[in-house]
Amino acid sequence: MDKGQNTDNRAITIKLLQQRGVSIEDIARLVLELQKGYYPDLTCEECLDSVLRVLNKREVQNAILTGITLDMLTEKNLIDEPLASILRNDDSLYGIDEILSLSIVNVYGSIGLTNFGYLDKVKPGIIGSINDKKNSAKNRVNTFLDDIVAAIAAAASARIAHRVRAVPTDD
Amino acid sequence: MDKGQNTDNRAITIKLLQQRGVSIEDIARLVLELQKGYYPDLTCEECLDSVLRVLNKREVQNAILTGITLDMLTEKNLIDEPLASILRNDDSLYGIDEILSLSIVNVYGSIGLTNFGYLDKVKPGIIGSINDKKNSAKNRVNTFLDDIVAAIAAAASARIAHRVRAVPTDD
Amino acid sequence: MDKGQNTDNRAITIKLLQQRGVSIEDIARLVLELQKGYYPDLTCEECLDSVLRVLNKREVQNAILTGITLDMLTEKNLIDEPLASILRNDDSLYGIDEILSLSIVNVYGSIGLTNFGYLDKVKPGIIGSINDKKNSAKNRVNTFLDDIVAAIAAAASARIAHRVRAVPTDD
Amino acid sequence: MDKGQNTDNRAITIKLLQQRGVSIEDIARLVLELQKGYYPDLTCEECLDSVLRVLNKREVQNAILTGITLDMLTEKNLIDEPLASILRNDDSLYGIDEILSLSIVNVYGSIGLTNFGYLDKVKPGIIGSINDKKNSAKNRVNTFLDDIVAAIAAAASARIAHRVRAVPTDD
Repeated sequence: MDKGQNTDNRAITIKLLQQRGVSIEDIARLVLELQKGYYPDLTCEECLDSVLRVLNKREVQNAILTGITLDMLTEKNLIDEPLASILRNDDSLYGIDEILSLSIVNVYGSIGLTNFGYLDKVKPGIIGSINDKKNSAKNRVNTFLDDIVAAIAAAASARIAHRVRAVPTDD
Repeated sequence: MDKGQNTDNRAITIKLLQQRGVSIEDIARLVLELQKGYYPDLTCEECLDSVLRVLNKREVQNAILTGITLDMLTEKNLIDEPLASILRNDDSLYGIDEILSLSIVNVYGSIGLTNFGYLDKVKPGIIGSINDKKNSAKNRVNTFLDDIVAAIAAAASARIAHRVRAVPTDD
Repeated sequence: MDKGQNTDNRAITIKLLQQRGVSIEDIARLVLELQKGYYPDLTCEECLDSVLRVLNKREVQNAILTGITLDMLTEKNLIDEPLASILRNDDSLYGIDEILSLSIVNVYGSIGLTNFGYLDKVKPGIIGSINDKKNSAKNRVNTFLDDIVAAIAAAASARIAHRVRAVPTDD
Repeated sequence: MDKGQNTDNRAITIKLLQQRGVSIEDIARLVLELQKGYYPDLTCEECLDSVLRVLNKREVQNAILTGITLDMLTEKNLIDEPLASILRNDDSLYGIDEILSLSIVNVYGSIGLTNFGYLDKVKPGIIGSINDKKNSAKNRVNTFLDDIVAAIAAAASARIAHRVRAVPTDD
């Protein structure tokens, strides 16, 4: 697997998010909303760039592919009981969606945790829309999707916080 | 170390929180605020009981003792640089306070993550007071304390969510 | 969902492990192997009891159900690319199996981490057998199963370590 | 804080490890031992470079500074009871050392978890020496140090695994 392949997987990941109704611009807007209070000059382009960098990471791609796959297989009735009902109802005691999301949040360290929890609770922008769709469309399953989107936005925000302080988080 | 010792350590932990300006009733009020929307009949006594159960866990006691000790040693100028400045300024890129808190949140599973992040961001009740004190008192260090209090409240809330569904999380 | 339901889910979880070739006695033997050096009087019955207590926890059940479901859906060719190949080949850079397992290990605190890593690396007993099967049977996918079994054994060992010191980890 | 400062903190971190009896070459040897079975051409220089990259990360520096500080303050009798005894005896039920180490391991994703657990259990090379010193010298406290060294080696190994597959984990 070479560098090209990794970029290919990013393209597949972005396309999959799009199919589920989430654009990278939607996520960039969440990042701007979270960070503009701290960095008044922050632009939407910088937020979008940060989202793309997060999506370049293999750990992040794997978590997104796995979570959305579980949502889609539940919609297609390919998951057995009792897991099917747990996923279909977004059972509040099912924590695997949070665990998968944590592996996204953590790619820029634990400082993303607060923003993740906040987004997951308040559900602004696209996260609210995903949640409404889940409640309105009878057969729609977005148990993993909303947490995943919050996690990407939280990680992209943490990356900006690190960058502003000119820290080589790279490599 | 017998069961009595564990209860002793809980008493020491509660006393240490008290010394730092946080009562278990303050934490119970955060729990009630978080959960009353879901369980209208929930009482302050039940929230207090849940906080006490969380504080009975060794993993929780250890995280609290370690975090508050670091706050206090920083106040006493016993920590060397560069860590001293990082802790004194509650550097936003220092994530060890979040990591320690995560070990508290997780005692009732990952479902507490959302509430932890929310409390840490919005800083209601006692968490806001701790934060104000940090900003007003020149020599006061509460880098760990505010996250620890949010984590205890989030764990106690997760415990209530599990209990209401009559699940033997015990043992 | 009442207490009975939770016990039902434990029975379903045990049956699913059995279908994948793992008995709770196999896991109890791993626990005995890990702990007998520290507790010479430890019996196989006590280890089995500890495994059953771990399997009673909802967080554990959810991780097992989710992981094994992903293994089985991959075998049935119901997962899309590129995730299908990643799961089929147990790609060493895919870390979601470790993340799910961590949520099992952590139910008795972070002290189980060491035993989990050791079992995952050395692959004694049933874990080695799962791994051999994965390598010999062309269509067999056990990407999640081996980590899950190591995680259950590590958690059951951590529980014994807590119990011996008479600590109320319950509740 | 600029890029220079971050490199400064790395130098301080390396010096602190050295004061506690651990050189970066010692850690590089652990990495070589872990990885040479998979990559026969791997050199000690490449392992050393990977260790240095890990030590460049702020999250890693913070965990090391915090953990070693707690070891040293315990030696100096500056920690109150009951935490002092817990740290002095490296109480097997104290898990904060594992938690701090996890934040180091995770900088290159969860794939480092297995190597961390293995090193922590088998204690090869410098990790064994640290442990022996802990047991022989009456006043020596290395409760955090051994886990921290295992975690740095595990993270550096994970970094090599990612690199060999030419993945841009950077940034």
